[in-house]
Amino acid sequence: MVYLSRKEHFNAAHKLYNPAWSKEKNVEVFGPCANENWHGHNFELIVTISGNPNPETGFVVDLKKLSRLIREEVVEKLDHKNLNLDVPFLQGKMASTEILAMEIWKILEPKISDITSFGKLYKIKLYETPRNFVEYLGE
Amino acid sequence: MVYLSRKEHFNAAHKLYNPAWSKEKNVEVFGPCANENWHGHNFELIVTISGNPNPETGFVVDLKKLSRLIREEVVEKLDHKNLNLDVPFLQGKMASTEILAMEIWKILEPKISDITSFGKLYKIKLYETPRNFVEYLGE
Amino acid sequence: MVYLSRKEHFNAAHKLYNPAWSKEKNVEVFGPCANENWHGHNFELIVTISGNPNPETGFVVDLKKLSRLIREEVVEKLDHKNLNLDVPFLQGKMASTEILAMEIWKILEPKISDITSFGKLYKIKLYETPRNFVEYLGE
Amino acid sequence: MVYLSRKEHFNAAHKLYNPAWSKEKNVEVFGPCANENWHGHNFELIVTISGNPNPETGFVVDLKKLSRLIREEVVEKLDHKNLNLDVPFLQGKMASTEILAMEIWKILEPKISDITSFGKLYKIKLYETPRNFVEYLGE
Amino acid sequence: MVYLSRKEHFNAAHKLYNPAWSKEKNVEVFGPCANENWHGHNFELIVTISGNPNPETGFVVDLKKLSRLIREEVVEKLDHKNLNLDVPFLQGKMASTEILAMEIWKILEPKISDITSFGKLYKIKLYETPRNFVEYLGE
Amino acid sequence: MVYLSRKEHFNAAHKLYNPAWSKEKNVEVFGPCANENWHGHNFELIVTISGNPNPETGFVVDLKKLSRLIREEVVEKLDHKNLNLDVPFLQGKMASTEILAMEIWKILEPKISDITSFGKLYKIKLYETPRNFVEYLGE
Repeated sequence: MVYLSRKEHFNAAHKLYNPAWSKEKNVEVFGPCANENWHGHNFELIVTISGNPNPETGFVVDLKKLSRLIREEVVEKLDHKNLNLDVPFLQGKMASTEILAMEIWKILEPKISDITSFGKLYKIKLYETPRNFVEYLGE
Repeated sequence: MVYLSRKEHFNAAHKLYNPAWSKEKNVEVFGPCANENWHGHNFELIVTISGNPNPETGFVVDLKKLSRLIREEVVEKLDHKNLNLDVPFLQGKMASTEILAMEIWKILEPKISDITSFGKLYKIKLYETPRNFVEYLGE
Repeated sequence: MVYLSRKEHFNAAHKLYNPAWSKEKNVEVFGPCANENWHGHNFELIVTISGNPNPETGFVVDLKKLSRLIREEVVEKLDHKNLNLDVPFLQGKMASTEILAMEIWKILEPKISDITSFGKLYKIKLYETPRNFVEYLGE
Repeated sequence: MVYLSRKEHFNAAHKLYNPAWSKEKNVEVFGPCANENWHGHNFELIVTISGNPNPETGFVVDLKKLSRLIREEVVEKLDHKNLNLDVPFLQGKMASTEILAMEIWKILEPKISDITSFGKLYKIKLYETPRNFVEYLGE
Repeated sequence: MVYLSRKEHFNAAHKLYNPAWSKEKNVEVFGPCANENWHGHNFELIVTISGNPNPETGFVVDLKKLSRLIREEVVEKLDHKNLNLDVPFLQGKMASTEILAMEIWKILEPKISDITSFGKLYKIKLYETPRNFVEYLGE
Repeated sequence: MVYLSRKEHFNAAHKLYNPAWSKEKNVEVFGPCANENWHGHNFELIVTISGNPNPETGFVVDLKKLSRLIREEVVEKLDHKNLNLDVPFLQGKMASTEILAMEIWKILEPKISDITSFGKLYKIKLYETPRNFVEYLGE
């Protein structure tokens, strides 16, 4: 079993805001992250596939195909977007890095078999800043 | 003459949008950066002071004082903010990295003498992403 | 289960020196790291919390609270300090990165429940240099 | 159990090419990576040892010894080399990052006991580029 | 005057070899860099444009246009290539980082006016490795 | 004119302390940096040589020779040392990053002609931490 990873990036605006709460409670809990006028980040996304290399290619997955899949299915839906307003798969959800990583897993997990029969999704790692990041392994 | 630099960071939302133009022209010129719902970045800001070290301290400027000055005068006004809506010194200006770097210079340049008599502002370097950055030397 | 991480930093002096040995044996074993006049490092500390996000916030833990906890309980005790002389929790212990990571775990592990009921300490990762680092998972 | 890691680097040329296939099929599968005139990378190699620290030194393994072992057994055989032509242990194998990481494991795993009795090889992490990397844990 | 920079990357094989010299002299001068079977690198290329921002856009140059220009004129000619064999503009020249940076300047300098009338080429910065890099300002 | 740079690193202990002052004034001015028990850093040192490439090699200077010179003349004198106690060329001087960069210039400037007749020392860049750094151009 080998673990193969590809890093992509996107940038987006968001706010942390629970619509079930008052504005005051949102500011109390989320502080400046609740700014109604939004703030934003350069996100770095690392997708890891686990598997055994195809003996004919030496590849668990062709990284060009993995890069294209991540860009088409995830990056194009998030890059230069507002996570709260523009992203259908985040509607009704908190726009935290934790939730975003879990939703990216849900999108990519069933599609890995389209690009390789030698591996499956192992981990989503998502940097919100160089100092804050999340990992999700699907369970 | 020695050049001493300090790196700080902030994150913010913005859009690139010229209000003198139609929405269509903004999209044509700025592409996804014109998204009306905003996008955002983790900015890295490097402030460089030039001067001769104070012989009593070996310092051109005390980096603790420089860090505090940058945070109070720049970072607090930009961090977790919307550059187009929340920042008085950017009102009526394009929220590009070029313009932001020039405005940060204008704020910091007259205040360096408050923290050192051995140096003056030499350069503002501002990373919008790890791949895009601007430098401004005041002229 | 999501893994959420926060990076902080501190710098410190130390030496590698076993007081049960002669000076010669210390130099033989530890080489320049045994320099009696000390050397030092910029340490990077990454603390990882595992858990399920609070549905009301989307957070496993509020990163502002985690950052404050790490700074108050760990960074303030180590930053600009001598690991061998100034740090009570390292007295009588070797000042290696391995031991330091394990001691940081002991400090933080019981305090995570003060800042979240949705997660617990999962990992301490400690960079002594960009080329040398240690990870500890508590067992 | 602590995990101690050391990062080294080398650069090398390679191509991705299956000699059982026609030139056309190689180009179809591997694209520009099949360039007959080679291309190359700066590889970053991180070797992780797991174990319990030696109570006399605080070390799972002496990092100077680990660095020397990696350089003598791996880096000297790969640095400034052509992975397809110059490296005996890769003969008859695909020169993918996956295969290279697995072969580095095979070389280092039996030699760790020469430098420590407190740890064993836990992981090989190999960056082909800052965006593409592989991890191998030996099984 | 503002300086705006864009980072792109490519990887390539090369060797350092003066065909006017014997094989022995090449090895003596260039050491492992003269390996006849080539070695390679991940190059990072930073292109800096100087100018005054267009008041209508806030841009010295549209970074999307600059990125596309660098990719079409430079990266496509070098990425996954052999600098000695595959690159017409390096024929008959030493494939050192110094020479490569100077040749990239010659390619890009006359084309900047195609994408902006507010700036001109100021600097080419080329990393051969994270530890070795070259800057060229055109004179 | 091309600028060629090489990065090396060392780690060291130091304190900021003016012996002409009382202990109280040192603490007042230098804060935790005046800790009598020392603190330390991983320093990153970038040495830049300017010149025209030797037409026979394509080199301003052979980077292997430059690396060896920096290691022998600078790194060996500073690595795993106490800047205040162990380094003859810093005796009687403040151990600030500014002063250290200027002293490294003095050591290297006259020795560059030993390794190349095509270039001379242009700049010393010294990172004390990833957030604090100094540049010195010799005047």
